[in-house]
Amino acid sequence: MVELTQLMENEAFMAFASYATIILSKMMFMSTATAFYRITRKVFANPEDCASLGKGESAKKYLRIDDRVERVRRAHLNDLENIVPFLGIGLLYSLSGPDLSTALLHFRIFVGARIYHTIAYLIPLPQPNRGLAFFVGYGVTLSMAYRLLRSKLYL
Amino acid sequence: MVELTQLMENEAFMAFASYATIILSKMMFMSTATAFYRITRKVFANPEDCASLGKGESAKKYLRIDDRVERVRRAHLNDLENIVPFLGIGLLYSLSGPDLSTALLHFRIFVGARIYHTIAYLIPLPQPNRGLAFFVGYGVTLSMAYRLLRSKLYL
Amino acid sequence: MVELTQLMENEAFMAFASYATIILSKMMFMSTATAFYRITRKVFANPEDCASLGKGESAKKYLRIDDRVERVRRAHLNDLENIVPFLGIGLLYSLSGPDLSTALLHFRIFVGARIYHTIAYLIPLPQPNRGLAFFVGYGVTLSMAYRLLRSKLYL
Repeated sequence: MVELTQLMENEAFMAFASYATIILSKMMFMSTATAFYRITRKVFANPEDCASLGKGESAKKYLRIDDRVERVRRAHLNDLENIVPFLGIGLLYSLSGPDLSTALLHFRIFVGARIYHTIAYLIPLPQPNRGLAFFVGYGVTLSMAYRLLRSKLYL
Repeated sequence: MVELTQLMENEAFMAFASYATIILSKMMFMSTATAFYRITRKVFANPEDCASLGKGESAKKYLRIDDRVERVRRAHLNDLENIVPFLGIGLLYSLSGPDLSTALLHFRIFVGARIYHTIAYLIPLPQPNRGLAFFVGYGVTLSMAYRLLRSKLYL
Repeated sequence: MVELTQLMENEAFMAFASYATIILSKMMFMSTATAFYRITRKVFANPEDCASLGKGESAKKYLRIDDRVERVRRAHLNDLENIVPFLGIGLLYSLSGPDLSTALLHFRIFVGARIYHTIAYLIPLPQPNRGLAFFVGYGVTLSMAYRLLRSKLYL
């Protein structure tokens, strides 16, 4: 147990744990947003989800596609595509003994960029707001990958 | 090597490793289910996948959308959206020195809820079976995130 | 800090870190490929993305589906579905004190299979190229899951 306590006393690792938890909680919020729009706009993907809205054919009209719901779903998928590499690379980077202030800078910029990406996607803001937010988060992850491979490559 | 042995002697971490492996294996099963329905129902997304079923235009009729296949794919995507936060938050939570019985309770409820979610999605069971399974798993992950941030926040 | 240094001196863990970073970087490349095809083929999912191409109705014609873009997106989603289990199971496996040469064999075959899967998907190569690449990566992950559960099951 001693070693784990020491792992959690490592500041870069603790910072990663905090920022990863925050950005994953934000990603989970997208599920709630999808459910909110599906229910308030009566747009469903499964027959059993709208069974209570009517019988037989009258319920089937709610099995449809809606721009607003699709927008949230695209934002959610984009989160998955970008937060998964951040989690994997960020975890290993935080364990590789990075400089604390450099590591904090990476984590903070990534989390800020992804939150801004979600805002830009959902409002929506005109481009290049969303595009820039995407590339900032992308660049941060690549920067951690580069630092990790440069210092610890083992093939 | 000594420290790693000790990491694997930590019971909360070992429990997380076991439950994470089980739920990831379940998620991988969804790929097999999709392949099974694609092949038995002859429903494909790529021209090269149905090239052996006929030449030219006669093969193109298999490039179609099927309710059953789409249902499995939605269940798979929902798994990804929920299991990724569980993996990230659960790993960090299990390393934060939680009470073992509390940690086990979280892991067991999450894994049970996600397996029930898959059953409810694929059969399908009437709502609110799937909805409740989703929210139970969601709540477990948020509970771990809350405990982690309360005890170890470092921003 | 001592323990972390020792964690990074563990060869199986360092090897996992290197291969995981490589395959995640490859997955991130799929985002760039999607953006490349969207821009060169003028195929967009959001009205704000093609606002600069024309005003009102004339821009809406670029909100469309394109075979090439959809192919990259399917390859990307397949990556997510397979690399997430590899990350979770591989991390825990690499910490479970595996034989180094066995671990390296797993990581190398997985990374090779997923790179070949992407090539087979994007060119595209005739089946069963892509199917075999998928099943090789799938089998490697299941093999690690089996070894992990056999040695460290804790429920």
